[in-house]
Parts: sequence; C-alpha cells; structure tokens
Amino acid sequence: MGIQFYKIKTTYKGSHYLGWQVQSKYQGRTIQGEINKALSKVFKSLEVKTVGSGRTDAGVHAIGQVFRVEAPFFIDNVALCRALNSLLPKDIKIREVALTDSSFHPVHSAKSKEYRYFFTNEWPPSPFYFDSISYFKGPLDVGKMKKATELFLGSHDFENFFCEGTPVKHKRREIFECELVEKVEMGIGPFEGEIDKLFLFRVRGSGFLKQMVRLMVGAVLEVGKGQLSLNSLEAAINNHSKGKVGPVAPPQGLYLYKVFYN
Amino acid sequence: MGIQFYKIKTTYKGSHYLGWQVQSKYQGRTIQGEINKALSKVFKSLEVKTVGSGRTDAGVHAIGQVFRVEAPFFIDNVALCRALNSLLPKDIKIREVALTDSSFHPVHSAKSKEYRYFFTNEWPPSPFYFDSISYFKGPLDVGKMKKATELFLGSHDFENFFCEGTPVKHKRREIFECELVEKVEMGIGPFEGEIDKLFLFRVRGSGFLKQMVRLMVGAVLEVGKGQLSLNSLEAAINNHSKGKVGPVAPPQGLYLYKVFYN
Repeated sequence: MGIQFYKIKTTYKGSHYLGWQVQSKYQGRTIQGEINKALSKVFKSLEVKTVGSGRTDAGVHAIGQVFRVEAPFFIDNVALCRALNSLLPKDIKIREVALTDSSFHPVHSAKSKEYRYFFTNEWPPSPFYFDSISYFKGPLDVGKMKKATELFLGSHDFENFFCEGTPVKHKRREIFECELVEKVEMGIGPFEGEIDKLFLFRVRGSGFLKQMVRLMVGAVLEVGKGQLSLNSLEAAINNHSKGKVGPVAPPQGLYLYKVFYN
Repeated sequence: MGIQFYKIKTTYKGSHYLGWQVQSKYQGRTIQGEINKALSKVFKSLEVKTVGSGRTDAGVHAIGQVFRVEAPFFIDNVALCRALNSLLPKDIKIREVALTDSSFHPVHSAKSKEYRYFFTNEWPPSPFYFDSISYFKGPLDVGKMKKATELFLGSHDFENFFCEGTPVKHKRREIFECELVEKVEMGIGPFEGEIDKLFLFRVRGSGFLKQMVRLMVGAVLEVGKGQLSLNSLEAAINNHSKGKVGPVAPPQGLYLYKVFYN
C-alpha cells in the first residue's frame, strides 16, 4: 500500500510550547514539531507531512485539535496511536486515529470550531491551576458580561478583534454560539476545593482570526469591570468604531475544545 | 512590639522545586527559599527565620504544609497573607496566617501527619496531570492492594522503608490510618473526563522517614502487580526481612496533605 492519510485528534497542555505551528528550529519547541518527530520515528522517514486545523498560540491548550497525516505507508490505527503516545512528551497525547483520504483537509473541511476559556477571580489563585486557568482580579458584573457575550452572535467583520499575523482574505466570521457560564467546581483528587467558582466563556464559530478569542474575552472582562459599556462593545463588534476595546486575555485559560466536521 | 511568631499554612505545586528545604544556593530553587525571600521583603530584613513541619522532596506537592515564622515585628495576619501571596511565585500560595508563640514548633508540636498519593493506570496518561498524578502501567489487583495497606497500621520499625538522609534517632513510627481508595473523578472545567478512575493511597502517622511514603506506595504497587506477596510485605514491614521490597514511587503523585496539632 502506498501513501496513507490519517485524521488524528490530539490533546495537549500548551504551557511549555511556542504553539501548534512548526517554526524556525532556533525559536523553540512546538506541538506540531514534537508530533512530526514522533511520526518520523514511527514511519522511519522525514517525509511525513502534517496539517493542523489551525494554529494555537504559545501557552494555549487543546482538548480536541485535529490534524491530518500524510504517511508513506499504512500502519494500523490502534498501533499508530499507541506508538505515538509512547514517543510523545508527557504534555501531548493522541486521543483518536482514523483513516481518511486526501479530500479531507483539517482547515477547509471544518464546519466550525469551539474554543473554551476558563477563568476565576478567587484570590489567591490556586498554585495548581496557574498555567491552565486564568485569574482576573476583583469583582465582576456577571450579568453584564453575559449580555456582552450575546453581542458576538451572528456574522461580523472582526477587524477590532484581530492581531496581525498570517494574511487573511477578509475578517468576516460567523459566531454560532457564545455564552458565559458560571460553574461550581470541586477539582479532581488533591485539588478538591482549590477552585470553587469557575467561569467558562464558550464560543463556537465558522473560524477565528489570530488572537480573536482572547480579544473577545478581554473585551468581555472590561465590561465586567465596568470599564467598557455594552454600546461601545457593540460598536466595536459591528466595526463602527476603530481599535481594540480590551486587552488580549492571557493564553493559559484558552482551549481549542473541538473542531466540527460534517 | 518585638519578635513575633506566626504559624502559617501553605499550598504548593512542587514540580519546579528541589523540595521544601533551603539548600546551598548553587543547587536550585526550594519552596522555603522562595518563602524566605518574600518574608525578607515584607519585613525588610534578612533575619526572618522559618521552620517547616518537615521536608518535602523535589517534585512533591503540599496542600497543607505548616511552618513557623520568627519575625522582627508585628504585621496584621491578613495583611501578611496578602503581601506574601503578592510576592510569591504562582506555584506557591499562603492559605492561613495565625499568631503563635515560641512554644509552638512545627515538628515537635505535630501529633500526626497525613500524606496522600494519587495515581491512575488509565492509558494514555492525561497531558494535564502528568506532573500532579502518577501513572502506573497495566492492570492492578486492587483487592490485594487494599489488604497490603492494612499491614502498615500500627507501630513498626520502618528500616526497609527508608532512604539515607538526615540522621534519625530510630526508625520506629506509628501508622494510625492507611487505606487505598478508588475514586471516580470527572476533573475540573476543561479537564472533565481526562481521568475517570483515580486511586488514592492515604496514610496518617506519627511521623515519616525520608521517602517512606513513596516506598510504601512502591511496595503496594508491587503487590498490585503480583510481584510481591502479602507475606513478604508483612515481613518487610515487621523488619523480619532485609532490604526494600519495591521501588521508590515517583514524586509527582505525592501530597503532604495535613499536619495535625493538638
């Protein structure tokens, strides 16, 4: 059998990486770089190509990042999953391996993507979650923040929620779901009670621009702190005002949660 | 007011430290070293002394480590707690500050200590828990492991569960509680479902020797894997056989959970 395509789902903790995308080798470790290295060992070839569903930035995590592998020959799915997990670092794991073909493209075949951003304002922030959940100081007007998230729904030109990077054809994206949820959490095992109240900003859209989700979260937080009105946010979302209305929220709270195909 | 004593409870993630105890400054960062640094800033003095309830090793965590501070003057408890938490690294946090006096000694006043060790055998290990929960390969005979933990109860000479380090007068310690618990866990926020089955080895005793808990866990695992009989473990615990009966379990699953006073 010749060239073989795989669709693979991976979970990773991004804290110690420059992000998903392979970069010049002098800049540091990337998730894709580690995966490529493992694949080249399994297939005994440097010619194994990977394409991810999108870049995640330095310090950003993924629960369900999807990538395509173009391999020189066939290896059984389960065996490939086991082999990769044995070779990969402890903070990158493969969840699912499926056969596919060249018509599947992780970016172009995607119908939508869901990101989740987790944060708390409980002080002091837990020493066990400092690199996986964001901490924001002070009281937050949750009611207003919930209203803010609804403003993102629909199709908008996200010019004000975009950082320069890879060139894009246009900045119009459609947001299918966007909500802020308050969660009461106990934590796992030793971390029971480490965080009692957790906030989840959940967004599913047709696609996302560079740092778009973190700029959305940053703006929602400004609303929560009373430093940005819902009217000003609405104007920024509809591109009736120029410039960013909040900071880029820190990466540690962000997760590429799921990529939807079909 | 002159010299003031504080009893302080701290929680830390030990992954990036050489352990609790201050060591020669060329060897690396320690928890106590970071705390001393923060205290010297708050009290504007290098003469602030700390005594911990015991050492935790490199990579070992604490939920409730207790230490005593001898400070040159009085600062309000709440203000001291806030100041320390602002100065400390993200993986060390102060939970409680209380006034005490020189009669309180973190080691000698302690009635007992509880350690907890968390592990799973679900494959692949979650990328989000690799430095906070241990992973052990393969099936485990949980029934036998539960019986193994009961053998530790009571007073024993723990010669076979001890690594050379600080000199000790004798190796007799009393174990008040020791159990293995299977827990079904969902994880917090983004980590929901990352670990479904978690094992907790919980032990409370009069005191513990260097690496004693990790040697206890290592032996219980050998029993679970069928590589050590309950009879051989019993002989080792009662010091009727010579030498260790299992490996030192890795540090990332271990937590100094609570120090009991009074």
